Amino acid sequence: MRDLTEKTITTEKIYEGKIISVQVDQVKLPNGERGKRELVKHPGAVGVIAITPDNKLVLVRQFRKPLEKTILEIPAGKLEPDEDPQTCAFRELAEETGYQADSMNHVVSYYTSPGFANEIIHLYEAKGLTTGSMQPDSDEFVELVELSLSECNERIASGEICDAKTVTAVYLWQMREWKDR
Amino acid sequence: MRDLTEKTITTEKIYEGKIISVQVDQVKLPNGERGKRELVKHPGAVGVIAITPDNKLVLVRQFRKPLEKTILEIPAGKLEPDEDPQTCAFRELAEETGYQADSMNHVVSYYTSPGFANEIIHLYEAKGLTTGSMQPDSDEFVELVELSLSECNERIASGEICDAKTVTAVYLWQMREWKDR
Repeated sequence: MRDLTEKTITTEKIYEGKIISVQVDQVKLPNGERGKRELVKHPGAVGVIAITPDNKLVLVRQFRKPLEKTILEIPAGKLEPDEDPQTCAFRELAEETGYQADSMNHVVSYYTSPGFANEIIHLYEAKGLTTGSMQPDSDEFVELVELSLSECNERIASGEICDAKTVTAVYLWQMREWKDR
Repeated sequence: MRDLTEKTITTEKIYEGKIISVQVDQVKLPNGERGKRELVKHPGAVGVIAITPDNKLVLVRQFRKPLEKTILEIPAGKLEPDEDPQTCAFRELAEETGYQADSMNHVVSYYTSPGFANEIIHLYEAKGLTTGSMQPDSDEFVELVELSLSECNERIASGEICDAKTVTAVYLWQMREWKDR
């Protein structure tokens, strides 16, 4: 195994926002030459796979400004400073959908865009759902939608389900159905 | 269905880089109030699921500066201006791994981080692999690794496979194995 590490020579801070910060690093490449890396820092996030007693996936319909469209996603949200991901998963599920969960089990964590961003998303599966009332953030506008597995697969085909964490959630559900046959 | 659209009031350009650009939009929220959205623009990318005749997934070992670590990913790369995603998939597979493919079939496309970025990744499955020679970009340093399905699942558990597109690729492979039993 070669050492492929890129050592930082300089860091230029570009932007410090509410959610992301941006910097450009000059690095020393493995061949000794210099390279430039554009980096987005993000606090990380959780996504919650919640399946109702009548076997439907809990989704939220939400406008996403970067895409300029409204899409269907599993409940999700970014980590507050020092927040435990599991605590965040309970919180986001309740805020966005009103559902309370008895337990929240970690499924997988992954980086969404390792080429330019350090965002990691932790996927959890909620168990033992009971209904409550939604309390989204003041600048967050979401609608609750519940779909069967076949409806979810149709929404992937139509493009209304079109983000990494939600596609992963549907695939995990589909995998389990096929595994358990 | 409520109209959840957030209309742009102003756009402030923050950064125009080689790969990403960054802007902050002031928006009119569905309740009439103002909000701020931090947006990263990205040209989009492809990822290639390539399984060898001896039933191993083709991966590349690569240092990722945003994560400050070396990880295992499926071959991938960003779209050149006006490049067709399928053409990009053939190109990136060949450049990063040396493999040529007879055909390249679209599997799914998704946004990696719809909360702050417009990056879309198109996943393709390569068929009819033949070996050639690697020609990575001048600032790209990658090592070829080929792993069985069980090895891939182990690497997800150990965290060496830890990005959205590669986890998706392994899940798709696992799904097909279970579906076809």
